[in-house]
Amino acid sequence: MNYIGVDLGGINTAVALVSEDGRVLERHSRPTPRGSEAVVDGIAAAVVQVLSQAGQGIEQVGGIGVGSPGTIDTSTGVVEYWSNLDFRHVPLADMLRERLGRPVLLENDANCAALGEYAAGAGKGSRSLVIITLGTGVGGGAVLDGRLYSGFNNAGLEVGHMVIEYNGRPCTCGRRGCFEAYCSATALIKQARLAMQRDPDTALWRLAGDPEGVNAKLVFDAMAQGDACAAALVEEYVNYLGSGVATLVNLFQPEVFCIGGGVAGAGEALFTPVREILEREDYARFNSRRTRLMRAQLGNDAGIIGAAMLHRYS
Amino acid sequence: MNYIGVDLGGINTAVALVSEDGRVLERHSRPTPRGSEAVVDGIAAAVVQVLSQAGQGIEQVGGIGVGSPGTIDTSTGVVEYWSNLDFRHVPLADMLRERLGRPVLLENDANCAALGEYAAGAGKGSRSLVIITLGTGVGGGAVLDGRLYSGFNNAGLEVGHMVIEYNGRPCTCGRRGCFEAYCSATALIKQARLAMQRDPDTALWRLAGDPEGVNAKLVFDAMAQGDACAAALVEEYVNYLGSGVATLVNLFQPEVFCIGGGVAGAGEALFTPVREILEREDYARFNSRRTRLMRAQLGNDAGIIGAAMLHRYS
Repeated sequence: MNYIGVDLGGINTAVALVSEDGRVLERHSRPTPRGSEAVVDGIAAAVVQVLSQAGQGIEQVGGIGVGSPGTIDTSTGVVEYWSNLDFRHVPLADMLRERLGRPVLLENDANCAALGEYAAGAGKGSRSLVIITLGTGVGGGAVLDGRLYSGFNNAGLEVGHMVIEYNGRPCTCGRRGCFEAYCSATALIKQARLAMQRDPDTALWRLAGDPEGVNAKLVFDAMAQGDACAAALVEEYVNYLGSGVATLVNLFQPEVFCIGGGVAGAGEALFTPVREILEREDYARFNSRRTRLMRAQLGNDAGIIGAAMLHRYS
Repeated sequence: MNYIGVDLGGINTAVALVSEDGRVLERHSRPTPRGSEAVVDGIAAAVVQVLSQAGQGIEQVGGIGVGSPGTIDTSTGVVEYWSNLDFRHVPLADMLRERLGRPVLLENDANCAALGEYAAGAGKGSRSLVIITLGTGVGGGAVLDGRLYSGFNNAGLEVGHMVIEYNGRPCTCGRRGCFEAYCSATALIKQARLAMQRDPDTALWRLAGDPEGVNAKLVFDAMAQGDACAAALVEEYVNYLGSGVATLVNLFQPEVFCIGGGVAGAGEALFTPVREILEREDYARFNSRRTRLMRAQLGNDAGIIGAAMLHRYS
């Protein structure tokens, strides 16, 4: 049986028809309008469009899953708060069910991405997966023993806000020393800008033009070209990353630990040193059953596939 | 229906008949012999003794749960390794089932303690509980959505080995900056000894006699008597503790976060400052549903009660 996945964003609403094993069969995307009624109308119209592309009727899908930003009450299907669209207590699941006449489940978009990787990506066939996403911040999600886990209030897995360095760098959340303040793409870019100001000879000047033009990929590129300044930046970054990953492995011991997000695009320049740190710092390193470190496989599709899978894994 | 809980220790084997709601009805304890056959015989004899005290037959209990130290394979009921009794691949559950003719479940003793607090202690009636135990080390356990969670290889929840201070104090596990190196009773005692050597005027000299005589309780006692040196030790200790607790809350968002072990005996001198830190550092502090911080309630009985509850929560 197929399922409908919805990736609701502040700019676009993406809808996909997804097979039982997590393959995208058809997809359609349209701009997200303002106002909750219009948003739900837009989702419903996109669902009809996708089904029309597939030549299927709504009665043939097992259900509709929606991944949304903001604070979600999964038990009631309500978006409690989403600043971007100024949603306050929007009963999105009920509104969409009324329009489409099929079961609707609502979940936080980061949790959907975790479920997508678990069901159809890096964690396929595994018992449990923890994922971290290295982007503007550091996001996280977990599927434990086949079920999404995000705390009794759906506010857990804030991996970006675990303190890895007591009294360390200030974080936007008010704590100091948060994982996110060291291992987000934003943090790496900030360190790279400071390094450029200290080091007029780094290849980053040539690659980035000026400090405003630097990004995470350019830092790894400069290192690959033999730039010592960039190599030092990457070394510091992966050491913090490895420390945080080892801590999360020691806590969760998931069968698969998955790293996604823009910085994960660096590939083995990032995964090899993190794997070496795990060889030293995973408390279960002498255990016959070890957590496997993997790169996220589904990219931007993880969220829409995970949303579709909500009915299978709830 | 009642259950049998077994708390297998290197020195004593404790057995209890436990009611469905987690009350100890009868108990019996005897020394733990050497050798796996003798150990299982001892458990079986203690079970018979407890049932005799209660005037019940073995057929009236729902099952037997055993909490054991060491590396446990819960799926097979095997103690893979336990250094203290030199157990290697002992199929303890099968051996005990053969003797008693009733279902037997085996679990790590720290996990049993977590389940005990969840089922009958601080977490009673809640959806999820994370417990940390401040003793020789810092232990941990979690019951999430009504089920014990300890990773796919039963090696998770090593909360003592999350790094809270990058490149910080060395830990016995090989990492640096582990929670345990700051927040175990052992760590507090070590800091107190160093402080006594620096400060000849601290009340700790009068209370402890000499540095070897100091313990965690004496540090809190000295603070209560107005000793500035002890107050500084406690302040540092609870700041690290609060940071680690806030990180665990941000990751797990359990309905109940429980602190047990010897140091938790300090009561509000410890819980009040940790609660204050959570008010600032819990990422869900603006959420209507917040993790409740509580002291463990069952003391040494948590393990034996949790062992008995394994059949209800597996």
